[in-house]
Amino acid sequence: MFQEITYKVIGVIHSPFESPKGTPIQPRGARGVRGEIVLKEEYKEGLKDLEGFSHIILVYHFHLSQGYSLIVTPYMDDSPHGVFATRAPKRPNPIGLSVVKLLSVRDNILEIEDVDIVDGTPLLDIKPYVPDFDIRKVEKFGWLEEVIHKLSEKRDDGRFLS
Amino acid sequence: MFQEITYKVIGVIHSPFESPKGTPIQPRGARGVRGEIVLKEEYKEGLKDLEGFSHIILVYHFHLSQGYSLIVTPYMDDSPHGVFATRAPKRPNPIGLSVVKLLSVRDNILEIEDVDIVDGTPLLDIKPYVPDFDIRKVEKFGWLEEVIHKLSEKRDDGRFLS
Repeated sequence: MFQEITYKVIGVIHSPFESPKGTPIQPRGARGVRGEIVLKEEYKEGLKDLEGFSHIILVYHFHLSQGYSLIVTPYMDDSPHGVFATRAPKRPNPIGLSVVKLLSVRDNILEIEDVDIVDGTPLLDIKPYVPDFDIRKVEKFGWLEEVIHKLSEKRDDGRFLS
Repeated sequence: MFQEITYKVIGVIHSPFESPKGTPIQPRGARGVRGEIVLKEEYKEGLKDLEGFSHIILVYHFHLSQGYSLIVTPYMDDSPHGVFATRAPKRPNPIGLSVVKLLSVRDNILEIEDVDIVDGTPLLDIKPYVPDFDIRKVEKFGWLEEVIHKLSEKRDDGRFLS
């Protein structure tokens, strides 16, 4: 049985955000913010035809997250929730997920927009964002329904750093 | 610098699909198919308040995928594309991503629906699916625009097994 799985870093995400503190929470809070992905040369062939997609899903490693908590108080609320009911970085596996706009692909460089990711974040995967796969008719979204209107104002206050 | 990252398996996904061959491609092709997540006991506290969400994102390991190709011919097309422009499992890091319906949470067991995942798949993370984070107005979705209508008929034919 698999107990541990090792992945390799395939590239680096660059953004204007030098530390988690002040980084927008989720791309919807990061509208218009541009960034860049530098994919390792050895993987660039895998980008063929990606440019046809307006949005891509980035899977990355929250490299500044240390340890984890099963109960967290997320940026957007004052009450504690189970970590799997939040997008907080201090998860058992600190895997991050963001949907961003793809502006251009040149050689091994991807220009992206709506970036809510800290500069220097190690990239694990890129997937095309496809309405039929990724858009669902949501009936409820829990504790976030009450607080989602605060999203655009919210910035990381560094609480998950230590 | 990070070159390799090791994650731990936090649970197992169960489904009616015993092998990739015959497994639906993406949850939209798996409507009504039920499955179950068995989270390891040690993480179950992290599920608090998850039940308030109608949909969740599963991040998992394509454990049957061996090696990778940068150019693949996906199930839904007859032309080759860069692997990052597809959702094929033979990726540099075989990380899978599916949005599924959450039916219930009982102790460390999650009942889920619209499951396009092979039985026994190792789970890495669970995230709440949140419209403001995960739903985007897509302008284009590349080669898939032409073939997406075939989705509900398509089943894995085992081509990524070897």
